Amino acid sequence: MTTLLALFRRPDGGDEALATFERAYAETHLPVIADTPGLRAIRCQRVVEGLGAATDLCLATAMDFDDRAALDAGLGSDAMRAAGRNLREIAPGLATLLVVESAEDLVPAAWR
Amino acid sequence: MTTLLALFRRPDGGDEALATFERAYAETHLPVIADTPGLRAIRCQRVVEGLGAATDLCLATAMDFDDRAALDAGLGSDAMRAAGRNLREIAPGLATLLVVESAEDLVPAAWR
Repeated sequence: MTTLLALFRRPDGGDEALATFERAYAETHLPVIADTPGLRAIRCQRVVEGLGAATDLCLATAMDFDDRAALDAGLGSDAMRAAGRNLREIAPGLATLLVVESAEDLVPAAWR
Repeated sequence: MTTLLALFRRPDGGDEALATFERAYAETHLPVIADTPGLRAIRCQRVVEGLGAATDLCLATAMDFDDRAALDAGLGSDAMRAAGRNLREIAPGLATLLVVESAEDLVPAAWR
């Protein structure tokens, strides 16, 4: 499995700005992402706190694809291009986009 | 669900240092984490690349618990304390630890 992992920094403007971002993300971004060909799952998580050190992150979304070829095809789709334009509007400079690949080989066999 | 999300920056020293870190993480860290009471799942992923900008991250591990109380109990356990000591040996200053909570309410209904 290949996953597009989006990490979002908290917008300036406190809780109100965060609520505005979350609303726009739910109402205008994820519905576009949902049309991406090859997308298998969306897992969205709020960052509650950093342990040991404060964090500037507020949201982490994992978008799963079968493999890297499927992700690349998805990234080139109209849906992902529209989602990219949307992101520049609703969260300018706040997103870090990572390609991550399952590393089950590192996990103890009983937990795979 | 409440998840402890560990993000690791790439150690100095290139691919050899990264391989050494991964080996220590798999052989000395995750086996200790695996004994944490209340732990439901371990998902470990390698960061392959950043999209649009380079990333200094190399690994992301999600450790799932039923809820925040279960995570807090887990964090206070002997296993997690030993894992914390181990992390300071094998990856000093490289880990960011985040508490994240499922945000399914943001995801389109058909994808929950």
